[in-house]
Amino acid sequence: MISKENISEAHERIRKYVHRTPVMTSQGIDDIAGCKLFFKCENLQNVGAFKARGAMNAALQLSAEQRAKGIATHSSGNHAQAVARAAKMLGMKSFIVMPKTVSAIKKKGVEGYGAETFECENNIQSRETTLAEVVGKTGAIEIHPFNNYDVITGQATAAKELFEDYQDLDFIIAPVGGGGLISGTALATKYFSPNTKVIAAEPEGADDAFRSMKSGKIEPSQSNTIADGLLTTIGEKNFAIIRENVKEVITVSDQQIAEAMRLMWERLKLIVEPSAAVALAAVLKSKEKFSGKKVGIIISGGNVDLEKALKILTQA
Amino acid sequence: MISKENISEAHERIRKYVHRTPVMTSQGIDDIAGCKLFFKCENLQNVGAFKARGAMNAALQLSAEQRAKGIATHSSGNHAQAVARAAKMLGMKSFIVMPKTVSAIKKKGVEGYGAETFECENNIQSRETTLAEVVGKTGAIEIHPFNNYDVITGQATAAKELFEDYQDLDFIIAPVGGGGLISGTALATKYFSPNTKVIAAEPEGADDAFRSMKSGKIEPSQSNTIADGLLTTIGEKNFAIIRENVKEVITVSDQQIAEAMRLMWERLKLIVEPSAAVALAAVLKSKEKFSGKKVGIIISGGNVDLEKALKILTQA
Repeated sequence: MISKENISEAHERIRKYVHRTPVMTSQGIDDIAGCKLFFKCENLQNVGAFKARGAMNAALQLSAEQRAKGIATHSSGNHAQAVARAAKMLGMKSFIVMPKTVSAIKKKGVEGYGAETFECENNIQSRETTLAEVVGKTGAIEIHPFNNYDVITGQATAAKELFEDYQDLDFIIAPVGGGGLISGTALATKYFSPNTKVIAAEPEGADDAFRSMKSGKIEPSQSNTIADGLLTTIGEKNFAIIRENVKEVITVSDQQIAEAMRLMWERLKLIVEPSAAVALAAVLKSKEKFSGKKVGIIISGGNVDLEKALKILTQA
Repeated sequence: MISKENISEAHERIRKYVHRTPVMTSQGIDDIAGCKLFFKCENLQNVGAFKARGAMNAALQLSAEQRAKGIATHSSGNHAQAVARAAKMLGMKSFIVMPKTVSAIKKKGVEGYGAETFECENNIQSRETTLAEVVGKTGAIEIHPFNNYDVITGQATAAKELFEDYQDLDFIIAPVGGGGLISGTALATKYFSPNTKVIAAEPEGADDAFRSMKSGKIEPSQSNTIADGLLTTIGEKNFAIIRENVKEVITVSDQQIAEAMRLMWERLKLIVEPSAAVALAAVLKSKEKFSGKKVGIIISGGNVDLEKALKILTQA
């Protein structure tokens, strides 16, 4: 299992390859939410998302022999860029399987780092089959987007930094898709801020974590939400950590996500992707729970087609 | 005249009322620009613009008797919010004259701080006449948006902070409208980083500073650009400082501004208003000048109607 030392070592390991992102506050949003919010800005991270942390931590632990073969993954976007960037920085090849439906900006970003891309259908079976073929052909090492301890340990460093900057947070909230960020966040909280309660935020249209927590086993995702970074079903390794360390999953509607996203664009002056607005949406939905509290929020990423974003924002 | 001590004192005076804004970098934009850019993020400042600094510095220096009467100004947006916010924080009334054409988000922002607003036509004569009437009726103290030494001194603190964070900048660039930011920036540079060259960036469609520098006297603005924060003609006090301390004015087209703005939204993940993209546009237009250099850029503000912004961005 992942220890406190693992996270501290990962933090040291990746330090010169990723940003220490700023934490933003907004009196205007606090007034609306009725609590004090601390936004950890992973949208300002390299590749525009926290994913840079986990991928870099995993890549840095490969042997010379493994590095020579390159790294591979399947991803709908941010993890793809993170793996491609890690490979480029460490002088490796990278091979990325992406669904056909992925946004132009995300595909462009990946290829900009010199990755070779492979198209697949937009479902987990097609992703995994295609990746298996690619790995079989190239011998590249797979870095899974979330169901991987090195990745989880890397993602944990975002919350670790937030706790270094702000003590005494009552809550910390992160979105849940595959569960890499929330499981890392939960472990960082356990080790570095044990009095802080961990809450996962999830779209109603992809509420597999919510249902899995209820049933006690992994339930497949339904996948219908504007928060397209959160469509994947939660991973096994992630679920085990979440079950033990996450207090609650709050689900929110697409309308609530769009409203939170608009608030973040207008008040924080930050480009955040829909998935990154889910945590604030959860706070605004459950105001009484957070009333007067100090709440940390991980803004997971900022990679969104602007035209698509505006369609969402105008509906908010 | 404004001394080094004036700027240091202003910085201390306003410290607890405004943010120390972060400085961002982007490898992606550096690669495109061919130089190393340091973006001072005044779009993340209170009220979403550097204007919070100057207005707060001016307001804090009023006597108790003056404070009792309140403060007034005319502004197309950001300074209006800055004055309204300063008034609210110090328990004063505020009276704001705004052109009819001002964007909804800016008017909403001002009224949110409890200011009383007055409409005028979108020209300098109507602004000044209306403000004179308001001041005559209320006895409020006028805080001019730029032609005011306390305001200029406050704006200078943004560049001062940038120089504290990053030494040895070869250039610093700020946009020029009325000239409050660039004149403050020029003085901060003179006192705190004398080897750094100061460049003003201006839209071709409002190139009064460029023409004024050529002719040696203030030339009126023509006012036709998407950078609607820079429409005003440069002030007398500002021009005197600029003539002496600004090395060059670079003008850019609306197309160049839109392209720079798109780059900043996509790569920096920051909401910046068109006026705040003019400085980067100047770098991209004059790449040979900045090649391999360290260049500071003041991102002046982030207040823009999202729908309007998207129209601009889709043309880039």
